[in-house]
Amino acid sequence: MPRRIVIIGAHAAGVDAASAARKTDRTADITLVTEEKHCGYSRCGLPFVIGGQIPSFPSLIVFLPSYFQMMKLNLKTETKATSIDTTNKTVEATDKNGKTEAIPYDSLIISTGASSFMPPIKGKEKQGIYSLRTLEDGEKIDAAIKKGGKTAVVMGAGLIGLETAIALKERGLKVTVIEMLPQILPQMLDPDLAKGAQEMLEQKGINIQTGKPVEEILGAEKATGVLAGGQQFDGDLIVSAFGVRANTQLAANAGIALGDTKAIKTNARMETSVKDVYAVGDCAESTHIVTQKPTLMQFGTVAVRHGKVSGINAAGGYALFTGVLGSSVSRLYETDVGSTGLTDGAAQRARIETVTGTITSKTKADYYPGALPIKVKLVVEKESQRIIGAQIIGGEEVTQRINAISFAIQKQMTARELAKADTAYAPPVCETWEPLVLAAEMVMMKLR
Amino acid sequence: MPRRIVIIGAHAAGVDAASAARKTDRTADITLVTEEKHCGYSRCGLPFVIGGQIPSFPSLIVFLPSYFQMMKLNLKTETKATSIDTTNKTVEATDKNGKTEAIPYDSLIISTGASSFMPPIKGKEKQGIYSLRTLEDGEKIDAAIKKGGKTAVVMGAGLIGLETAIALKERGLKVTVIEMLPQILPQMLDPDLAKGAQEMLEQKGINIQTGKPVEEILGAEKATGVLAGGQQFDGDLIVSAFGVRANTQLAANAGIALGDTKAIKTNARMETSVKDVYAVGDCAESTHIVTQKPTLMQFGTVAVRHGKVSGINAAGGYALFTGVLGSSVSRLYETDVGSTGLTDGAAQRARIETVTGTITSKTKADYYPGALPIKVKLVVEKESQRIIGAQIIGGEEVTQRINAISFAIQKQMTARELAKADTAYAPPVCETWEPLVLAAEMVMMKLR
Repeated sequence: MPRRIVIIGAHAAGVDAASAARKTDRTADITLVTEEKHCGYSRCGLPFVIGGQIPSFPSLIVFLPSYFQMMKLNLKTETKATSIDTTNKTVEATDKNGKTEAIPYDSLIISTGASSFMPPIKGKEKQGIYSLRTLEDGEKIDAAIKKGGKTAVVMGAGLIGLETAIALKERGLKVTVIEMLPQILPQMLDPDLAKGAQEMLEQKGINIQTGKPVEEILGAEKATGVLAGGQQFDGDLIVSAFGVRANTQLAANAGIALGDTKAIKTNARMETSVKDVYAVGDCAESTHIVTQKPTLMQFGTVAVRHGKVSGINAAGGYALFTGVLGSSVSRLYETDVGSTGLTDGAAQRARIETVTGTITSKTKADYYPGALPIKVKLVVEKESQRIIGAQIIGGEEVTQRINAISFAIQKQMTARELAKADTAYAPPVCETWEPLVLAAEMVMMKLR
Repeated sequence: MPRRIVIIGAHAAGVDAASAARKTDRTADITLVTEEKHCGYSRCGLPFVIGGQIPSFPSLIVFLPSYFQMMKLNLKTETKATSIDTTNKTVEATDKNGKTEAIPYDSLIISTGASSFMPPIKGKEKQGIYSLRTLEDGEKIDAAIKKGGKTAVVMGAGLIGLETAIALKERGLKVTVIEMLPQILPQMLDPDLAKGAQEMLEQKGINIQTGKPVEEILGAEKATGVLAGGQQFDGDLIVSAFGVRANTQLAANAGIALGDTKAIKTNARMETSVKDVYAVGDCAESTHIVTQKPTLMQFGTVAVRHGKVSGINAAGGYALFTGVLGSSVSRLYETDVGSTGLTDGAAQRARIETVTGTITSKTKADYYPGALPIKVKLVVEKESQRIIGAQIIGGEEVTQRINAISFAIQKQMTARELAKADTAYAPPVCETWEPLVLAAEMVMMKLR
């Protein structure tokens, strides 16, 4: 009898799990169950459809029905997994017609993702509060703009909040971003670098209000504004971008252990506490490469890597997940903002003694027209001199500088080694002394 | 008495040596001797002045007289160092007025650079053969174009040859590039990747003739064409881009040892065979990080790194040079071509058994408008699975991908580790699965 692999969820993690499972076991019976109508699309692309850079929401669908057919995957859309029986190894699921079945599995992969989170704020039940997690969310925001929305208040200055704010501004709305913390992008940046990013956004005309916790959502039945830090901000569109929470209820109900981060606990094979059950993507923990502690990194790149490892294992292979650094990047207008490893703040919280080096440089030779500014902050563990984090804000080639530091952290490169690294140079693409090298040099000066 | 440091040469290596020496010893007496009128300019920028991207040749001067004043460096231009007396520790130099002096030193740094090389071809003494090494060379080519040159033949398809060919084409000339070897960019690329770069240049209208050794330079007194591979190519401008040779005569005459590469032999402190004499930049050998053998990498980035190490040591400090990988990049029209470590060909010649992985991907998410093609080739040592080289051709972020692989090679990252690396992602700047990771994956598949 062919191996039966059931996957709950059919986005980045789920589909990559299915693909890896198929490549590992050509004869397995692989079923994906998702309550959504649309699956296999890129959530990360949603703000760019609203902003107008990408022509339509369906453009974001990366895995078309033909893909599932080609890979011989059974796809059950609009089918909700309601419970898992880990003893009898079945998943109970109900389709849109109300028909319930128990789907048997040999291996189960839980990729239930995460959902937009709304804190217990007064008025949070009001109508017309938008979020941006699903394709349908995106369509609703788009419709509200088309209906004549002129002003927007975005609650939360994380990546999704800022990308949504920019998209709304691109569509001509007057946009205010409200953030409880004293800085934007608190997961990615230390306050010093966040300040520069915030100023850039303000120069583009986005009103950013940091240090203002949202106290109430205002309006009669429909949300028409927010009260934050004692101040009133009105908006035709009120957008909730407080972040997401892992969808763990299904797993928890089945007795599968959650971890310190409240996401599903996993080991390096992406196995949960229950045999033959894996968890991947936004609902699953990973190990942080620097701290070696459980962490929750809800990124598309982590999801696909999780998915692949779980798919190989679920299909009888053997693969290990080597951990995360939280490498991430976003293009905010013409400026790329990237981060990997620990911020200095996160390092302090992990009780790691640090030295940092921050430099400002250019993306091309000084004499080459069009050179753009770039700022690099390196975070180094003082005792070992190892690089443990980097934040970069700049006009070009930020993503791959983040990747370069990610590799350096993974391979325990020291600041001294980076200060002496062999780098490539040509006037139209970089300076003779690479900014990453200069930042390492700055760290070495402080360590002397 | 203050320490006397003499530096022969005042370009990238020499000036960075002087700066590092000054920072190490605030009271040293530091003298730079150069036979050139202009110093401290970027040679790498020359093609872009001819091409019109950079407004003028003086724009390329990175170190102005004010810099030398600020750093308290004695700069003797148009002064030729004629001999070194390593016993009495003096450099004999003659200025433009014919005045000769013996300059005493405690530490001597030789940064005599390299000169354009012309092989013993029939007719090589003819007038009107241009090269592109110095600012004056650039001015001559510019003047020849302004005088009405309409066609050009460039001999040599290395980086300088191609960058010059593009610059001439940008100025409206009909350009032919002649290369003896069967491929362009033989130092940087394996034939498979070189083919793609060549096709791109041909599509831009540059006529590239590979596998054609230059047999004769044609013309009466003035060069008007070349005979190559039995075929005649006519040109108003004949450009020699056969590469450069280290300027070692001064060192050799003083009994300073040359190495296997025929450049000046150095150790990790950039010391030559003679005590208190250092050699740096295009005239000096380095150790290759992969082969651990002497190699000659005549790049600006290597020159400044050499210079810095020698300056610290010459001024009484202690610094080590950690070797080279030949990381290099060039923007050819809108395509960036980069390389680091060993090509597969170079690895074969070093008798390293390899596995390679080549993939073609895009620089943005597939659905994001403006995604550009990118091709990555990884070279991996079969037995150790360690990455030893990479070649990348693509539309964006090639330079920092090269740097990322340079760090990976330096830290002995394996293909398996790269295949599992944590990378950053956002639709406008990269794909979910980073091309470097996919290339490593390809290698792993071949290793199975």
